[in-house]
Amino acid sequence: MISAAAPLFATDVYRRRLERAAAIGRDAGLDALLVTPGPDLRYLVGSRAESFERLTCLVVPTDGKPASVVVPTLELASLKGSAIADLGLPVHEWVDGVDPHTLVTDMLPAGARVAVTDAMPALHLVPLAERLRSVPVLATAVIRELRMIKDDAEIDALRRAGAAIDRVHARMPELLVAGRTEAEVADAISAAIVEEGHTGAEFVIVGSGPNGADPHHEVSDRVIETGDIVVIDIGGPVEPGYNSDSTRTYSMGEPDARIAEQYAVLEDAQRAAVAAVRPGATAESIDAAAREPIAAAGLGEAFVHRTGHGIGLSVHEEPYIVAGNRTVLEPGMAFSVEPGIYLRGAWGARIEDIVVVTEDGCEPLNTRPHGLTVL
Amino acid sequence: MISAAAPLFATDVYRRRLERAAAIGRDAGLDALLVTPGPDLRYLVGSRAESFERLTCLVVPTDGKPASVVVPTLELASLKGSAIADLGLPVHEWVDGVDPHTLVTDMLPAGARVAVTDAMPALHLVPLAERLRSVPVLATAVIRELRMIKDDAEIDALRRAGAAIDRVHARMPELLVAGRTEAEVADAISAAIVEEGHTGAEFVIVGSGPNGADPHHEVSDRVIETGDIVVIDIGGPVEPGYNSDSTRTYSMGEPDARIAEQYAVLEDAQRAAVAAVRPGATAESIDAAAREPIAAAGLGEAFVHRTGHGIGLSVHEEPYIVAGNRTVLEPGMAFSVEPGIYLRGAWGARIEDIVVVTEDGCEPLNTRPHGLTVL
Repeated sequence: MISAAAPLFATDVYRRRLERAAAIGRDAGLDALLVTPGPDLRYLVGSRAESFERLTCLVVPTDGKPASVVVPTLELASLKGSAIADLGLPVHEWVDGVDPHTLVTDMLPAGARVAVTDAMPALHLVPLAERLRSVPVLATAVIRELRMIKDDAEIDALRRAGAAIDRVHARMPELLVAGRTEAEVADAISAAIVEEGHTGAEFVIVGSGPNGADPHHEVSDRVIETGDIVVIDIGGPVEPGYNSDSTRTYSMGEPDARIAEQYAVLEDAQRAAVAAVRPGATAESIDAAAREPIAAAGLGEAFVHRTGHGIGLSVHEEPYIVAGNRTVLEPGMAFSVEPGIYLRGAWGARIEDIVVVTEDGCEPLNTRPHGLTVL
Repeated sequence: MISAAAPLFATDVYRRRLERAAAIGRDAGLDALLVTPGPDLRYLVGSRAESFERLTCLVVPTDGKPASVVVPTLELASLKGSAIADLGLPVHEWVDGVDPHTLVTDMLPAGARVAVTDAMPALHLVPLAERLRSVPVLATAVIRELRMIKDDAEIDALRRAGAAIDRVHARMPELLVAGRTEAEVADAISAAIVEEGHTGAEFVIVGSGPNGADPHHEVSDRVIETGDIVVIDIGGPVEPGYNSDSTRTYSMGEPDARIAEQYAVLEDAQRAAVAAVRPGATAESIDAAAREPIAAAGLGEAFVHRTGHGIGLSVHEEPYIVAGNRTVLEPGMAFSVEPGIYLRGAWGARIEDIVVVTEDGCEPLNTRPHGLTVL
């Protein structure tokens, strides 16, 4: 929870983002966007404020007037390190006893059509909706258009994140050792994630043996043994807040032939999905490309999740690579390609790279070997 | 983010909480409570699930039917370590592609009046409100009645938390040393918080010299010098999730007479506020009791925040000790009493104890000396 001031992008980056968010909001028939702390606030003004109970809210009108910030006087310091001062945004302080929700709605025209950030908690959304006498819509539809397409500075940050997590995977022979518990291995990996340049370990999954068959298993006190297949899915942010996320699967000793054969299907699937990424393809077509080889090998039922998710300031964001998502890929989109197979009670495997859509295909940001690495 | 399974209260504790939440909800004219991950979910069923993007939701009908849980198949493991299995609650799994919000609203009667947990993000609240065609109310009004009054097991956990953070304050001569930066001191304190029995350091404020005059300053690279007044406000959870929160103020060397005199006013104020705590008193009367001696000494403008906040599974929860809150204190309520004075650009001080309301007064859970400790 302790964080020093964060390195930021140039102020102009945030000015442009605010202007574009207002423009897209206006085109969508909205009067304002309301953004409480979370990744959208970080995206728009570089603020890492974490306030929950007392309302901090960026109000972005869509009529060309400047955005402004409502903030409790007590938490003014939380705006330090953001671009808010450099952008010259008006800051409306409030003290305990004042109704901050009315402070926000008084800034809006009567009958305003408003969109709110995904992360706004009910604690604030319910009183705002009462005062507005309508349920706001989600701002995701507006902000996703912006956040999905990464600019050069963002792609550079994602590249740095990818290289940093690759260095952690490269250290797996030292970190992932038979005889240690999953939790012990996870602690060592967490330390390595920070040592290799992340500001923290956001998640560390060590799924050994049958635990690997649960895609969202985190860690346990299970002792890793020779013969185990181990799924290692790890990541975290690098400055200014962009995340890595990469999975590799390891074999503690030579795998048996049946496992190696099934794993080879997964490798084919991941390769096919990455090969399908290009501008103009739909998100769901990448999911289908991953699913096809796995289904053809009779393992369709073992691939229990979507193929991927966008990544940036959030570990999971738009675009989601899932059946039904007809979002058309464009250069600058960044997402994971991570098919997996899960054989309940036995073992599981997943291969995950982050890719960025380029003009004619994609650039994988993770470059560690995809094979079942024998340790 | 890595957490092993948590020690829990007995299953009957959660059964009773669910029954009472349903009963209070029914009395309030509600048909159901919807509780996504956060402290309310932890309170009601002992679950530490942290899901955001995919909906996990406890549905508590108020008509006597059992509660049930909607959870993504992928995150089933997040329910491990909770009381959900022992309570025998039905679990409705959903997979990517299914609309989980309709899954929830289909469980409710048409035109249902619904209350939602404070922590529910807009990402889920907006689609639920659309399907319900009305804005839910906040469940706080229902759940606060329960969560505000701690039972014996909860008070025991808060006592253990209080003793643990007192042990950290007792170590301040070793931790808070002139010549170190605030950030270095904070790192050492964070380690001590864990060493003394917390599962983590939830917050560490080291406000030295002029930084102490900002009540929500966290840490900086300022080097602590002889002559500084330093505010140390620290806390974190002990199993099964109950928090400590205690502030003491330290002087690096003998303070000058003027500071000692003003600090003595603060000591009086904190003592007067604690003395006012008893069943039947209002929350705002405690705030007034703290404010009076400070105002009488001409320092009223320097006391810029409310006097306290409830504490339990959340660091900040009901009851808030603030002007305008006429909540009547009852035995079992636990909250902070933490007046402060803040002299901009110069120094600040705060004294904070957690107290539990007893039959005839209160029990302070922090017992370190209140004076300006000279280091």
